[in-house]
Amino acid sequence: MFRVVVQVSDIDSVDQAITSCNNLINEMPDAEVEVVFHQSAINAVVKGSRVEERIKELMRRGVTVVACRNSMRSRNITEDQLIEGVKIVNAGVAEIVRRQAEGWYYLKL
Amino acid sequence: MFRVVVQVSDIDSVDQAITSCNNLINEMPDAEVEVVFHQSAINAVVKGSRVEERIKELMRRGVTVVACRNSMRSRNITEDQLIEGVKIVNAGVAEIVRRQAEGWYYLKL
Amino acid sequence: MFRVVVQVSDIDSVDQAITSCNNLINEMPDAEVEVVFHQSAINAVVKGSRVEERIKELMRRGVTVVACRNSMRSRNITEDQLIEGVKIVNAGVAEIVRRQAEGWYYLKL
Repeated sequence: MFRVVVQVSDIDSVDQAITSCNNLINEMPDAEVEVVFHQSAINAVVKGSRVEERIKELMRRGVTVVACRNSMRSRNITEDQLIEGVKIVNAGVAEIVRRQAEGWYYLKL
Repeated sequence: MFRVVVQVSDIDSVDQAITSCNNLINEMPDAEVEVVFHQSAINAVVKGSRVEERIKELMRRGVTVVACRNSMRSRNITEDQLIEGVKIVNAGVAEIVRRQAEGWYYLKL
Repeated sequence: MFRVVVQVSDIDSVDQAITSCNNLINEMPDAEVEVVFHQSAINAVVKGSRVEERIKELMRRGVTVVACRNSMRSRNITEDQLIEGVKIVNAGVAEIVRRQAEGWYYLKL
């Protein structure tokens, strides 16, 4: 079974990134997928974001959605502002490295 | 021998990406290189694209050029519109994961 | 101990990239980190660049900063124009592949 850690950094390409995540799951239904939102893309996982419904749909499909605390802090986003179900890690970049160390494949969208 | 799967997503940086592919081959002449074009960059592998000659040159140099069918479909690009020699996969992102699982190194341009 | 090779390509997102590098080191103080600047981001490692002090700070923190000679050549940047301590490789993309072959994890910022 494939395990894939996906990095999404840029809020301007977040729609494309979510579409690509869905394409990945469609093609590999058994894959375990974790998507890390950091830098400006952190805004995608805030309640009321333009892509809130698509983020929830990803989670309904079994994807783990992760927010970077560093990115939240520098944009004054608090935990309670995140879409329900989104997990938090201290540093998104470290999470991506750690997952690779655990044998996950890496995909930057 | 190195095997490298290259991801090209953004049509606006496709010239730079092709230059970097050529630099990679110059430096590692024995490497096996596959370049996956998806998202907006799919337009680069369509006949008559601004970089058509450079894409053909990559293939002449031994690079496998791959188009993402999901990206084609969402932009109404048909198989016969692709530059001759370009291969098609269902999902570019899944191809990148699959190649990593086969031991290829990953490069996002 | 983690070894991480970081790719920085775009001068427009170089500030974010440096911040993410610092976040990575903060979270993983024992990690060995090499940051490869290529394409337009090569301008970040030139003396007098807007981020010169931040580049020097990265090196003081133990990060290896690498410049791509292909990117220098195409922008007429000479060795003596680089910030002191920056190393040079022939092709940044080949360096990233080589590091992966040596077991380093890959991160594109």
